Amino acid sequence: MKQWGGIGAKPALPEGRFRSHNRAMIVLFTDFGPAGPYSGQMKAVLHKDAPGVAVIDLMSDAPACDPMASAYLLAALAPAFDAGTVFLGVVDPGVGGVRAPVMVEAGGRWFVGPDNGLFAIAARREGEARWWEITWRGERLSASFHGRDLFAPVAARIAKGERPAGEPLDGEGRPGSDWPDDLARVIYVDHFGNAVTGLRAETLAPGTVLEAAGARFGQRRTFSDAADGEAFWYENADGLAEIAVNRGRADAALGLALGAAIEVHAPPAR
Amino acid sequence: MKQWGGIGAKPALPEGRFRSHNRAMIVLFTDFGPAGPYSGQMKAVLHKDAPGVAVIDLMSDAPACDPMASAYLLAALAPAFDAGTVFLGVVDPGVGGVRAPVMVEAGGRWFVGPDNGLFAIAARREGEARWWEITWRGERLSASFHGRDLFAPVAARIAKGERPAGEPLDGEGRPGSDWPDDLARVIYVDHFGNAVTGLRAETLAPGTVLEAAGARFGQRRTFSDAADGEAFWYENADGLAEIAVNRGRADAALGLALGAAIEVHAPPAR
Amino acid sequence: MKQWGGIGAKPALPEGRFRSHNRAMIVLFTDFGPAGPYSGQMKAVLHKDAPGVAVIDLMSDAPACDPMASAYLLAALAPAFDAGTVFLGVVDPGVGGVRAPVMVEAGGRWFVGPDNGLFAIAARREGEARWWEITWRGERLSASFHGRDLFAPVAARIAKGERPAGEPLDGEGRPGSDWPDDLARVIYVDHFGNAVTGLRAETLAPGTVLEAAGARFGQRRTFSDAADGEAFWYENADGLAEIAVNRGRADAALGLALGAAIEVHAPPAR
Repeated sequence: MKQWGGIGAKPALPEGRFRSHNRAMIVLFTDFGPAGPYSGQMKAVLHKDAPGVAVIDLMSDAPACDPMASAYLLAALAPAFDAGTVFLGVVDPGVGGVRAPVMVEAGGRWFVGPDNGLFAIAARREGEARWWEITWRGERLSASFHGRDLFAPVAARIAKGERPAGEPLDGEGRPGSDWPDDLARVIYVDHFGNAVTGLRAETLAPGTVLEAAGARFGQRRTFSDAADGEAFWYENADGLAEIAVNRGRADAALGLALGAAIEVHAPPAR
Repeated sequence: MKQWGGIGAKPALPEGRFRSHNRAMIVLFTDFGPAGPYSGQMKAVLHKDAPGVAVIDLMSDAPACDPMASAYLLAALAPAFDAGTVFLGVVDPGVGGVRAPVMVEAGGRWFVGPDNGLFAIAARREGEARWWEITWRGERLSASFHGRDLFAPVAARIAKGERPAGEPLDGEGRPGSDWPDDLARVIYVDHFGNAVTGLRAETLAPGTVLEAAGARFGQRRTFSDAADGEAFWYENADGLAEIAVNRGRADAALGLALGAAIEVHAPPAR
Repeated sequence: MKQWGGIGAKPALPEGRFRSHNRAMIVLFTDFGPAGPYSGQMKAVLHKDAPGVAVIDLMSDAPACDPMASAYLLAALAPAFDAGTVFLGVVDPGVGGVRAPVMVEAGGRWFVGPDNGLFAIAARREGEARWWEITWRGERLSASFHGRDLFAPVAARIAKGERPAGEPLDGEGRPGSDWPDDLARVIYVDHFGNAVTGLRAETLAPGTVLEAAGARFGQRRTFSDAADGEAFWYENADGLAEIAVNRGRADAALGLALGAAIEVHAPPAR
């Protein structure tokens, strides 16, 4: 069992949960793409270091090399997972450089990966979060694949209830701490061509119109409330405003791509 | 344990199988694409609701928003799976609209998903099938992602041997009941460019010639029986007639795409 | 338990490992693509024949129908896996033809698949390897999908500690035995556009310059040691020389594609 370095506070998670850790879950959130070999190499480490712990591929197509867009996606997806879930997040264009490796506990969930803002929004939304720079090191550490050599072993150990060595960090002033609470951009285009924005629908007043790529979109409850071929925005199943076309592809029909700016037109005051 | 709503008949599956359900299997058949996050979100639900039950990704590239083509693919793939397998099928362009959620038992296998014809062919080929509209509801039901909020929890419960609440449906007259027994179209183009048709090879007489995109194809036993670059059709490993080019791509070489019509030329009577 | 055909030597692996086989691992290395249904069909067989054994998707995008390039990739990836790991390798353009099905034990790891050179380099690098032609047969053997009907059942049995029937083969003169120790070509282009070569970095003297597609590349330790947009080669996390562009895509920027020839310019003698 590794020592839990430099931390006076007790672990946030009940010990019992981890002692019988068959229900623990490690969730992969990467920009590695759906094929290989990087996800598989991380899974092999996880299986070896935390046998019996479930590993779920949540996203392998997070916005490539874009920790900012990825941060808003992860923040929207994470709350549905139970406390104790360990997110292994690797969107890491700066691997091998100066960015620190971190582990974060927020709302009972854990996040392990690079300190480049990827976890900033998920942590902020929980209000309270604890950050550590990972000082644990394994047998080898390649210059270009910390996901396999550092983040996966650390995630496995946390899922088993161990506490890899780390130095507490101040959550203030970390990368991403100056990013807005919601991001008025397209942060993901899904398999069906729908354009997910970084705006939580609950922050938009009823009647809000979104504008992107020169067109304006009113709100619908869901696809079947729109006419065939009609473009609209709706609150998707993860709470984000998403621009879609009923029985069509929003990306192709509207020219929407990752990073496209969104303008928010609030409804006129009554 | 949920109540099994409105059903007088006994469960088709031996109770013992489900009591020790470690061998049960949930099979994903979707048009979500291989990346994320939709498959991962369903898997997280399955892991939580049916821990220890194996989950297999069978297809994540079923014909997008095309329940008809998907139905013939699923019907060809399902028979190789043991009784007790639960197919979680989500090709669901009408989510949020009026289509009902269903669960179907046919040949000892279960199918959970939208009532849009997706399970019509697999059920028909078993001869006898029992259909229920799913009336079970969980804590939340989004308007756009029933796969996660309804079908996955129901599939998990069935795999555990529970019987989520449902209302018996008449299998006659359901969506897809007027579809043909075999579909003379390209229903899938695989990673190698081979064009899978909705025709079972066993329904085609020896000597049958298939025509598609203006060209005619004779039958071969397998790839190595054709010359390099030769186009042919053969009975694929799932029993379907498939148009292929030895050491080439049928899609590119022949202009074959999903939905292409197939003409069947039976051999002349002897 | 199947008989272990025609082999006088004892199994290379300790029996104990296999008796409690929960830690065993079956690793998929295929050119099937990340969607479906072929990988899923193999996994269903593995789950049925070797329940409880972990199955890891290592690569589903091995160079399609290219056993030679695939062989150098597999040889670079395999050494990180523990003894006892079973690699189920299916890059098999000759399925249904005359190529033999083989199982190979090298360095305590097992390889199951077609005898087309796919395992030749991994076996050679271990120095000692034992080869068998698989004579085991299951209930059905399709002409076009030996991965599902032959290789997966055999891999499952090996992972459980059984020894499927086989005839010893002479490792000399097998397909691939005349291939070079390192391959001066691009053998993989990854999701980020990096071009992986078949050259082990340890075989290249410090100061080596690589040339490909008309351009020359010096060595860097990792991405962050190169300027933005600079092209370079580095030793990747699996020990191979890889051509990359910092914060760019080498494939698009340099016109590098699978199969591109690499010229090695050794540094001038001092």
